[in-house]
Amino acid sequence: MAAMNSKRRRRRNTAQTSQPPGFQLPRQQLVNPYPPMTLLSDDQIESIHQASLTILSEIGIDFLLPEARDMLKKAGAITETDSERVRFDPDMVEQSIGLAPTVIDMHARNPQHSFKLGANYLSFGNVSSAPNASDIIKGRRTGNQQDFRDFLKLTQYYNIINFSGGYPVEPADVHPSIRHLQCTRDFIQYTDKVFHAYSLGAQRNRDVIEMTRIARGLSQAQFDSETSLMTVINSSSPLRFDKVMLEGIIEMSSRNQLVILTPFTLSGAMAPVTLAGAVAQQNAEALAGLVFTQLVKPGAPFMYGGFTSNVDMRSGSPAFGTPEFMKTAIVGGQLARRYGLPYRSSNVSTANSVDAQAAYESVFSLWGAVMGGCNLVKHAAGWMEGGLCASFEKFVIDIDLLQMVAEFLKPFEVNEDELALDAIREAGPGGHFFGTAHTQARYRDAFYAPIISDWRNFESWQEAGSPQAVDKANKVYRQVLEDYQPPPLDEAIKEELDEFVDKRIAEGGVKTDF
Amino acid sequence: MAAMNSKRRRRRNTAQTSQPPGFQLPRQQLVNPYPPMTLLSDDQIESIHQASLTILSEIGIDFLLPEARDMLKKAGAITETDSERVRFDPDMVEQSIGLAPTVIDMHARNPQHSFKLGANYLSFGNVSSAPNASDIIKGRRTGNQQDFRDFLKLTQYYNIINFSGGYPVEPADVHPSIRHLQCTRDFIQYTDKVFHAYSLGAQRNRDVIEMTRIARGLSQAQFDSETSLMTVINSSSPLRFDKVMLEGIIEMSSRNQLVILTPFTLSGAMAPVTLAGAVAQQNAEALAGLVFTQLVKPGAPFMYGGFTSNVDMRSGSPAFGTPEFMKTAIVGGQLARRYGLPYRSSNVSTANSVDAQAAYESVFSLWGAVMGGCNLVKHAAGWMEGGLCASFEKFVIDIDLLQMVAEFLKPFEVNEDELALDAIREAGPGGHFFGTAHTQARYRDAFYAPIISDWRNFESWQEAGSPQAVDKANKVYRQVLEDYQPPPLDEAIKEELDEFVDKRIAEGGVKTDF
Repeated sequence: MAAMNSKRRRRRNTAQTSQPPGFQLPRQQLVNPYPPMTLLSDDQIESIHQASLTILSEIGIDFLLPEARDMLKKAGAITETDSERVRFDPDMVEQSIGLAPTVIDMHARNPQHSFKLGANYLSFGNVSSAPNASDIIKGRRTGNQQDFRDFLKLTQYYNIINFSGGYPVEPADVHPSIRHLQCTRDFIQYTDKVFHAYSLGAQRNRDVIEMTRIARGLSQAQFDSETSLMTVINSSSPLRFDKVMLEGIIEMSSRNQLVILTPFTLSGAMAPVTLAGAVAQQNAEALAGLVFTQLVKPGAPFMYGGFTSNVDMRSGSPAFGTPEFMKTAIVGGQLARRYGLPYRSSNVSTANSVDAQAAYESVFSLWGAVMGGCNLVKHAAGWMEGGLCASFEKFVIDIDLLQMVAEFLKPFEVNEDELALDAIREAGPGGHFFGTAHTQARYRDAFYAPIISDWRNFESWQEAGSPQAVDKANKVYRQVLEDYQPPPLDEAIKEELDEFVDKRIAEGGVKTDF
Repeated sequence: MAAMNSKRRRRRNTAQTSQPPGFQLPRQQLVNPYPPMTLLSDDQIESIHQASLTILSEIGIDFLLPEARDMLKKAGAITETDSERVRFDPDMVEQSIGLAPTVIDMHARNPQHSFKLGANYLSFGNVSSAPNASDIIKGRRTGNQQDFRDFLKLTQYYNIINFSGGYPVEPADVHPSIRHLQCTRDFIQYTDKVFHAYSLGAQRNRDVIEMTRIARGLSQAQFDSETSLMTVINSSSPLRFDKVMLEGIIEMSSRNQLVILTPFTLSGAMAPVTLAGAVAQQNAEALAGLVFTQLVKPGAPFMYGGFTSNVDMRSGSPAFGTPEFMKTAIVGGQLARRYGLPYRSSNVSTANSVDAQAAYESVFSLWGAVMGGCNLVKHAAGWMEGGLCASFEKFVIDIDLLQMVAEFLKPFEVNEDELALDAIREAGPGGHFFGTAHTQARYRDAFYAPIISDWRNFESWQEAGSPQAVDKANKVYRQVLEDYQPPPLDEAIKEELDEFVDKRIAEGGVKTDF
């Protein structure tokens, strides 16, 4: 009762002011209760699968790391002298399918932030890897540590965000040789959620793996039994895996950490101009990555990533949140499920400002991802300009979109209480429901209360200065930064972490050879 | 070949300039090839059906037109002396189900603009019934004839819009007694698409029916055999049908014209605060309307309209494009199909400006409508402020959204040509696809070319003055108004129409008793 009163007070307070930082949903493991949409028949999916096998056996993939080629050759793949090309017998590919887990437990240092990937679980990550940051007051600037940390605060604050999918913005003011050390320490100190390690050379992966182990307070053996870290491995489409990406797979898969294999197959540029061809190529690259991870460690957690979109054929610019993106997102999900693999998609936009375009491209992306049965949405909050900018206002607007998706996925209940025949009797023809007991008992929490949407009538809105959605988002994000509280971190762990980072920084980090 | 060249030229020209009025899809009968999403099991749908039957038999509906009560009483409904209440035995309701057509042919005066309603056909109508109009240059103003006509020009211009769902904006400068005459003449002269008759008293319906018959050049008997006109009948929720609405059903159904029965069941105000209750009430009102239309004329075309949304429980303001709206849109579709009826939903937003909110609420609405297997989307372009304003810029942005939905619904083809293995061979690992023969043969028409989306990089966009989506939409709509060409109208028909209108105006139109 006390808890209920306290909850009521909190909600009423939010309701009264409708001010930043606004309502947020409780922490939850989101589940999509609906069967995924399918655009293709099983036969059509099989045709794409077969086309991918043909690509892998006839054309092959370039693996730029000699060690990887050696491993693949020993396992039966066909390699050539003086060539990076690797070809795969269809049997070798088929044998890799079914080894990786269909559901992955992702362990955060705060167990309340652990989550599941796969089946009908759905999770959201923050914007990642943008070289620029922006807000409407200070404008657009090169990424820096302050912005990086501010985005981590938002990531930590919002329950709907499950993980940091990478550096929200690249902190250009932190030297690349030690950036992974500084940034990972920030991940651990500013958040207690799951985070991401960039695969930029084996040593960086090893450093971040060790820091993650320290943060979780686990022995090496325990760490290897609990997936706590993720990396995105992009193939350099078409049909190529760079050295650092293959090193990343070796370091991460051997330690049982998550590899999200995401081909960067932009239809018309790095992939065929026809969507089926682009997806067949995406699928071939994903399967090649699957083979390699399962060779490194059978059963290593692997996620099928779909990022196929189209380019503007006039300018070559990539386009996102397009009808083509939605379609390939849904077909990608069908393929991932064909292989029993968890599936990753994204919330993307090419817009240069937080306008109508930014919003419709994002909702179209979410439509494709959610209806396609995606398990992990990367860049779910804050991604702009096709990935070149992380926007603080878009972050907050996206939070509202994600929360609305979560509400949409909440089962539609039908029972005596919900059917409310007594309330309909009480109101009767021509009556009003606000005064009924049924309404009075439920009105506070009946509907989703959006952070951003302005439902005032035009006159009240105009009197308030005609605020746009982006203006409200600006206020909200600044309020969240003020309200933010760092998560507790065990003092012993903090010391061990600092000791590790200080030592590695003193050693010069990792030579910046890229 | 000549046609192909001409098509190419046209597309290239569009591509080169990327200028207003932008690309539009060809005229088409849109089909949704995917099975509708279902949120509820058949048993849950049956529970709602049974709850609606209970409402109709135990609580009843107020029918404010004595003639309608008499008709219903004769048909077996239970009425009371000195009361407007009508109660329905479940059998009487069940007997009305299955009489109305599952697919309706809507006949436009230009047969190329005729379309089908029901099954998996999808159609879009313009914004309707807004008291205000707006654009970013002239601002927001009370609806007037010039704006009314300008919206009709946009309606005619865009192929993706199938019909005028009402007056896009109310022309307050046209006297209500003759407004239906003037506006319907405008419908006929400015467009050759299907349009709507407001049910504001029997005589207005009769006038518009006669004008529609004249416009189509049909005899009275022919007209009665071809559905050419639609009216929206709103129940005055909860559980009440006003006099003019019932007159509208009598006039329209008796002439075999389309009734779109749309309860205005805002959850928390005119309907229970729980969604299942709101939908049960919506369904009861829709079924009562169905019974009455089928009593007027068995087999009269009837559309099940869903408009259930929620209100802001703090202010009482209606909210649209919410998660609750999406859910009831999808459940409404399940109910309509339970009864074999075509289904109407809407593209709605409460935003006061054409910002991110306007866009995300619209795409969420479309998500619910399209995934819910809706057949007719009213207010599909231009609706703002919960219906209080028709925006020229939002009209154009919505056109882009609708075209993207149409592209999304185009089947994803998988065949040898689309799988493009030869192109993948030609590009090879590390190659580029732009130069391949496969790309060169297809790049012009490969992807949807949006009207509004700005895909330029930040620097180019900034040099161009940092235009927002709404700025581009402003340019586009003004260009469309310049490019607009009125559709041909047979001189004899025009004369007959003018004669009718002039005579009815001279008679004073219809006394404004409302």
